[in-house]
Amino acid sequence: MKRIVNSTPKRDGFRMPGEFEPQKRIWMIWPERPDNWRNGAKPAQETFKNIATTISKYTPVTMCVSHEQFANCRHMLPEDIRVVEMSNNDSWMRDCGPTFVKKDKTGEVRCVDWDFNAWGGLYDGLYFPWDKDDAIPEKVCEIEEQFCYKVKDFVLEGGSISVDGEGTLLTTEMCLLSKGRNPHLDKKQIEQRLKEYLNLEKIIWIKDGIDPNETNGHVDDVACFARPGEVVCIWTDDEKNPYYKACQDAYNTLINAIDAKGRKLKVHKLCMPKEDVKIGKNFKIDSVDGSKPREEGEPCVASYMNFLITNDAVIVPQFGDDNDRLAIKQLKEIFPDKDIVGVFSKEVIYGGGNIHCITQQQPK
Amino acid sequence: MKRIVNSTPKRDGFRMPGEFEPQKRIWMIWPERPDNWRNGAKPAQETFKNIATTISKYTPVTMCVSHEQFANCRHMLPEDIRVVEMSNNDSWMRDCGPTFVKKDKTGEVRCVDWDFNAWGGLYDGLYFPWDKDDAIPEKVCEIEEQFCYKVKDFVLEGGSISVDGEGTLLTTEMCLLSKGRNPHLDKKQIEQRLKEYLNLEKIIWIKDGIDPNETNGHVDDVACFARPGEVVCIWTDDEKNPYYKACQDAYNTLINAIDAKGRKLKVHKLCMPKEDVKIGKNFKIDSVDGSKPREEGEPCVASYMNFLITNDAVIVPQFGDDNDRLAIKQLKEIFPDKDIVGVFSKEVIYGGGNIHCITQQQPK
Repeated sequence: MKRIVNSTPKRDGFRMPGEFEPQKRIWMIWPERPDNWRNGAKPAQETFKNIATTISKYTPVTMCVSHEQFANCRHMLPEDIRVVEMSNNDSWMRDCGPTFVKKDKTGEVRCVDWDFNAWGGLYDGLYFPWDKDDAIPEKVCEIEEQFCYKVKDFVLEGGSISVDGEGTLLTTEMCLLSKGRNPHLDKKQIEQRLKEYLNLEKIIWIKDGIDPNETNGHVDDVACFARPGEVVCIWTDDEKNPYYKACQDAYNTLINAIDAKGRKLKVHKLCMPKEDVKIGKNFKIDSVDGSKPREEGEPCVASYMNFLITNDAVIVPQFGDDNDRLAIKQLKEIFPDKDIVGVFSKEVIYGGGNIHCITQQQPK
Repeated sequence: MKRIVNSTPKRDGFRMPGEFEPQKRIWMIWPERPDNWRNGAKPAQETFKNIATTISKYTPVTMCVSHEQFANCRHMLPEDIRVVEMSNNDSWMRDCGPTFVKKDKTGEVRCVDWDFNAWGGLYDGLYFPWDKDDAIPEKVCEIEEQFCYKVKDFVLEGGSISVDGEGTLLTTEMCLLSKGRNPHLDKKQIEQRLKEYLNLEKIIWIKDGIDPNETNGHVDDVACFARPGEVVCIWTDDEKNPYYKACQDAYNTLINAIDAKGRKLKVHKLCMPKEDVKIGKNFKIDSVDGSKPREEGEPCVASYMNFLITNDAVIVPQFGDDNDRLAIKQLKEIFPDKDIVGVFSKEVIYGGGNIHCITQQQPK
């Protein structure tokens, strides 16, 4: 694998495609750590299996897994899912995995390897250490025999960004300006890095995300591009909903935004679950110093926004909530040409994320 | 990855190509265990680097490595060598790795996954445990997205066989009939398994190998096919050479053998080193129960036969012996169209093998 440190994707004519563009493969990591996933991660593994199996009907899936869980994972997953050994600290491929960039002229795909520090490092990160997660982008590059841009001294997670593939990126200030990531850089310098490594001209900043204590407000619980010129944004009319203000603020930002091509955005509203999701009974996790504790009754951040757009389908979280069907209906209107497939994914939010957080798309 | 247990390569029209047929890739494993490789495996890593780099001038190389050594290995090897994470017990890819089989009609390549038990298991194996090595063929299959034939209850190492790609296999009784491998099977049953899984009609049995205490006499220190109808066999005229009798016996077996096509074999003689190779000074290995101890002054088994045939080249062990150049000259006569490239590989024999033992070819 060639590691590139003296150039950037922009300089070399590569750009990050939108998630809605054709995909070659979806990457995931098998969950196992018993201090984050309840009951030895067995319920989470069932859910990851369901999600991976669902995705694999539309797009090939590669599941990365530690040697210790290799045989179990291989046995649990359908044969058409590729399973490769990869050491990890946890299973958030969206955030620790590579960001893929593509050169349209040649079709070549390369990786961007950001620093990963478990959502805030020693300042307010969720676990320590994170060295194995941080090594994952290079290992993916090696398997895929791609070149890799190593971004020096710049922390970024894939869940904190959404792009339209035409020069615009969506993110939140809460996350990208957080103290645990790039305190040595100001907003302008951060914009500069994003523009160089993802080939962008315009950054649209939403102020806050909805999970300040987990990812410091990743945008992938709040909004994303459905296609150039169109975004999906969380929405509730219920003033008592804990996310009411966040929805309003994000919506107002987006409805007034101008993208890199000078377009005003069409903003599609996506409902929130009606009921709060809380960690249920029979929840046992190992107690480990340095890992975020999780306990019975603790509120979880549940958002239908955390869906994955893949070839011919959108894979959507379902919570057993009254709004589950409404979310699917709304997404069908936004993505009329795609199957909208719900997967019950409460076990993933118990661990701190959802379907989008545990997947990473590799463009064709 | 599809694991096939209800059919065999022969039934499905796959055969093992000869090593001299076109190759897509050479697989290796990075050495690290300090109870087998001297001085923290640092000298061995230098030698593996030299061997891999030499091979990669002719054929792409993939180096498998533990997570712990990943960064060091990646840093030491040239960028055009692919490095992938793979847990291992040691670095003998020839023996624990998959055997590749090919269907000529379609060009499809699949793997055969034998049991591996560290050359004799609990009877006279060289280390314990060997579970990570035994898992390697499936992991290679996953990365390569190939189907895998799982051979049940049959121990075999790649170093114990050589094929002509036209139905004939060369092996030794010392190894294949050893008590530590398949004591539940008689010679005929073993022949049957080989014929089914490698698509063969004829097994040529040499009686003994030359390293009874390491691999129980792998054929890859004694003889191999150079092409259909032609074999290379170790040879010495020096009656005092410790391998004099072994050379005579192997040569006499081969000169009288008939292959699967009814041909008598042309037998090329390859010299042995003049001097005995012994483990030198400054040799420190960790002492671990269950691993074969190795000590200063201990004799090593050194054979020029343990070369790798790859695309356009033969990569040959060199020992600093008076016969080093003769071995290269003889091989040039046997392989006139190939580069004959010597690599100084004493560190590998200190660990118990040589260039052929640490490589495995994947056909095109």
